[in-house]
Amino acid sequence: MTHDTARARAQALLDTLNHALADRDAAAASHLFADECYWRDLVLLTWNLKTLEGRSQIADMLAAQLDAVAPVRFSLDEREAVEEADGMVSAWIVVDTRHARGSGHVRIKDGRIWTLLTAAQELKGHEEPLGTRRPMGAEHGIRRGRQTWLERRQQEAAQLGRETQPFVLVIGGGQGGIALGARLRQLGVSHIVIDRQARPGDQWRNRYKSLCLHDPVWYDHLPYMPFPDNWPVFAPKDKIGDWLEMYTKVMEVNYWPSTNCLNARFDEASQAWEVTVERDGETLVLRPQHVVFATGMSGKANVPKIKGQEVFQGEQQHSSQHPGPDAYAGKKVVVIGANNSAHDICAALWEHGADVTMVQRSSTHIVRSDSLMDIGLGDLYSERAVASGVTTRKADLIFASLPYRIMADFQVPLYDRIRERDAEFYRQLEATGFMLDFGDDGSGLFMKYLRRASGYYIDVGACDLVIDGSIKLQAGKQISHLSENAVVLDDGTELPADLVVYATGYGSMNGWVADLISQEVADKVGKVWGLGSDTTKDPGPWEGEQRNMWKPTQQQALWFHGGNLHQSRHYSLYLALQLKARQEGLPVQVYGLQQVHHLR
Amino acid sequence: MTHDTARARAQALLDTLNHALADRDAAAASHLFADECYWRDLVLLTWNLKTLEGRSQIADMLAAQLDAVAPVRFSLDEREAVEEADGMVSAWIVVDTRHARGSGHVRIKDGRIWTLLTAAQELKGHEEPLGTRRPMGAEHGIRRGRQTWLERRQQEAAQLGRETQPFVLVIGGGQGGIALGARLRQLGVSHIVIDRQARPGDQWRNRYKSLCLHDPVWYDHLPYMPFPDNWPVFAPKDKIGDWLEMYTKVMEVNYWPSTNCLNARFDEASQAWEVTVERDGETLVLRPQHVVFATGMSGKANVPKIKGQEVFQGEQQHSSQHPGPDAYAGKKVVVIGANNSAHDICAALWEHGADVTMVQRSSTHIVRSDSLMDIGLGDLYSERAVASGVTTRKADLIFASLPYRIMADFQVPLYDRIRERDAEFYRQLEATGFMLDFGDDGSGLFMKYLRRASGYYIDVGACDLVIDGSIKLQAGKQISHLSENAVVLDDGTELPADLVVYATGYGSMNGWVADLISQEVADKVGKVWGLGSDTTKDPGPWEGEQRNMWKPTQQQALWFHGGNLHQSRHYSLYLALQLKARQEGLPVQVYGLQQVHHLR
Repeated sequence: MTHDTARARAQALLDTLNHALADRDAAAASHLFADECYWRDLVLLTWNLKTLEGRSQIADMLAAQLDAVAPVRFSLDEREAVEEADGMVSAWIVVDTRHARGSGHVRIKDGRIWTLLTAAQELKGHEEPLGTRRPMGAEHGIRRGRQTWLERRQQEAAQLGRETQPFVLVIGGGQGGIALGARLRQLGVSHIVIDRQARPGDQWRNRYKSLCLHDPVWYDHLPYMPFPDNWPVFAPKDKIGDWLEMYTKVMEVNYWPSTNCLNARFDEASQAWEVTVERDGETLVLRPQHVVFATGMSGKANVPKIKGQEVFQGEQQHSSQHPGPDAYAGKKVVVIGANNSAHDICAALWEHGADVTMVQRSSTHIVRSDSLMDIGLGDLYSERAVASGVTTRKADLIFASLPYRIMADFQVPLYDRIRERDAEFYRQLEATGFMLDFGDDGSGLFMKYLRRASGYYIDVGACDLVIDGSIKLQAGKQISHLSENAVVLDDGTELPADLVVYATGYGSMNGWVADLISQEVADKVGKVWGLGSDTTKDPGPWEGEQRNMWKPTQQQALWFHGGNLHQSRHYSLYLALQLKARQEGLPVQVYGLQQVHHLR
Repeated sequence: MTHDTARARAQALLDTLNHALADRDAAAASHLFADECYWRDLVLLTWNLKTLEGRSQIADMLAAQLDAVAPVRFSLDEREAVEEADGMVSAWIVVDTRHARGSGHVRIKDGRIWTLLTAAQELKGHEEPLGTRRPMGAEHGIRRGRQTWLERRQQEAAQLGRETQPFVLVIGGGQGGIALGARLRQLGVSHIVIDRQARPGDQWRNRYKSLCLHDPVWYDHLPYMPFPDNWPVFAPKDKIGDWLEMYTKVMEVNYWPSTNCLNARFDEASQAWEVTVERDGETLVLRPQHVVFATGMSGKANVPKIKGQEVFQGEQQHSSQHPGPDAYAGKKVVVIGANNSAHDICAALWEHGADVTMVQRSSTHIVRSDSLMDIGLGDLYSERAVASGVTTRKADLIFASLPYRIMADFQVPLYDRIRERDAEFYRQLEATGFMLDFGDDGSGLFMKYLRRASGYYIDVGACDLVIDGSIKLQAGKQISHLSENAVVLDDGTELPADLVVYATGYGSMNGWVADLISQEVADKVGKVWGLGSDTTKDPGPWEGEQRNMWKPTQQQALWFHGGNLHQSRHYSLYLALQLKARQEGLPVQVYGLQQVHHLR
């Protein structure tokens, strides 16, 4: 079977699909899909992030949407080869709809579509000023009264939020808010990104001092401006902080630092938000059409209530408040929790001569960084991937093309390999009593991240300290209470402590909605994040996509954005296009608005 | 003739060359070159920037250098096609010497080498930490006492210039100093870049407000970090300023703003410089091994002495001091000069309602920006070039591969086309009395830049204002004197003036040496810039390379760096490699040290 015939067959299938779509024949189109089939659509047909599973869901979606988005036309991407392996044909596609152009990917088995990804890339008539469309900068020809670039920027800054109102207010200026701000600027969507910290990047700078990214550089690029080739694999927090600060400036994001959001409410009458903010001490009311919470999946600190917290004489901190180890040499520290932050903080404290105990209350997934990079990410995000032509854009789309429903199945074998490769390491770790897991179904780190965004540590060395006893471990125990000078476990063990660090994670982002808008709206939109996988901390029913992220919610004009750098980069595109479409008044018809099954 | 046989013939020629070099047979090697032939070597064999012209110069160089740099081995670059057109074979090559690896390009006519470029890219054992060699960032494994990235940076900053001395001091922190600083950081060469302005980028910010780059974005990238795709074609000065500031930070250049160099002297005894600087008001003595003047080709303002300057009651400014037009609405302004700055300043003043007269004392080369971009640069630096696979690196090497001796011959036909394309425009301009030229030999803008760095305007609209009389023109006249309220020309014309702007250009960079070191050293190194083309403002004899730029000078351990963004990017590599070689104590044997023929 040559590539040419694979190409011809893929082309023939797309031609048939195009005919069915032209005929508005949803049933005929859906019959081009296999018995098991998935169509993941990112904004292009559904004006939503939606994975349709099975022919019937696909037919329903097409029946509902075709009138609104047709003509829809699929083609093979001429720049890319069609590949065939193990009886499956894989092809890159381009998709054209009434209002948008998109990219995508299709996998064909036995002549029918198994997986299909369609992802909006730009809105027609609103293409980004990039490359051949980039601005001139200098206007050729001289005319009286024109402003310089600096004068325009200064005037915009002076008027925004006063004489002019932003179309979009983004609450939270970490990597998520900044990446979205850059996209909105590019698309010409008026916006303000607010953050309570003094400088862009302080979200990273103000964390514990040993923090480095746990994801590698190839996975972490921001939109438009990749990190340079000299960028470290795992960037230190302050270097990321500096990058975010300069990125914000260079990409001309309208960023208000030192700005607190006090409250927000959606005014039904004016169909706009009324958001009260305090900027450098001054109180202002903003009236954006849309509000995006980019307050951080890891932003809403979760501090357990424990008996005796009020009598404890030492210091208590949530991990997000921990300043680093410098002040704690020679002190006794108890860290409650055994995930990423707990391990990082314990290791740094030990390095600086503190006496550290980690309290592990439930099992943790551990994966060594080297193995994760090599086996878990290497095909898509690595120097090796770059060398074989897998650009970041391509890697993002390949990643996005695998439906969440079957993703775990593809992850399990990788973690089986990792378990084998690092068997001796895991044996030593478990010998300390450390409670290890690989997720409920053995699918490892990435699924844990997507399902619950917790429950793991990417090992960069702290496990060795646990193994050799440098970090003392109390595993499988709960906290009974705090005494004046100790953490007391449920088996009666007393852990003397000058400092208690609660590395106890973060709550759902709708907790921020409760704080800033109302509990009623928080409940209306429901839990944020997770897939409904019916695994630990990710209750069913199955959702098919991340709950509430980057897509319309049950509260009109309220959005959530965030995640790691990869997600902040990739999904900011789809969120920005949805906002742009609304600013331009395109006839947006959302299909399959997310239902709420859980409140937090 | 297929490409394969061209490849085979090129390979055979290189094989023969390799044999001759292995035999240390300089004569045999030189006989592989054509009667007319050029070998341009950038640091690889000569430890100099040197163009050898003719077989005899090539044989001399090889005889002198081979023992020091052998083994030398040429290969075809396997990633690139060998091309054949009009009887000439062109090939990309890689070159390996004892201490370095290089890239290059060869043009072969009738089986012999016509032009050869050999350009050092890295020193063996001192490869840059890029791509697969990039740093890890997070150190895996935990050890006591290690510093974070921030702590290391802070310690370096605190100690540098006090407990530790930089190997290289770069005086001047515009794009030249910054690009060099980034290269030195990458190569692990201890350095400080000092600048008198308060922030990196202020060199641009503090110029007249309408200033935009006259070169397009594709030509302007800095090393390591290209401008993003949304960057304007002609970036406004403040945007470039912001970019330089963030680049300096992200590339971790050791940059001292608000620092004035007071004086410098080379101490023969210690073989080091003693440089007195004032940093934020504190006087410090630095003791670097090398000093680089990156003070700007357009840094040493040239203000003519004119009778009556002391009696004139209005304002007088050099163009570099001109703040922009805002304060001059309704005022009468005389701008002396008719090159880039003069045109930009006149146009901005007219825009803001000033009454402007331009005094053109000698002829100017004018080229419209569109035509220059299209015909002059488009094959190498444009969206079109990018689309056809001409990366910036490749464009730089193609550009570098054409020896200066024959470059003008290749430029003349381009400007003939431009003259034809814009004939009506030039006719209208000359009809105003404007004195137009295309260079002494009709070779246009780029040769003027290389020869004298003056004498032209890239038209972005001011010429239309000259043509329609909005900007008043006094052409072909000299200044007699200034009266209390006017500029008086040699024909008696009185030009009433509230402001006189001297857009009269800049002096040779060794003027800075006279100011900061001594007149004796300034004379010892001689004139900086120019090719010795024996054309206006570039007296012979022929030099073959830019005088004193980026290469050893007659003053030990004194270097010059600068030029436009293209040159700051490309030539900073060769200067940085020369400095790195010296820091590492490699046996550097400079061939053909530049002679001094002119003092300024």
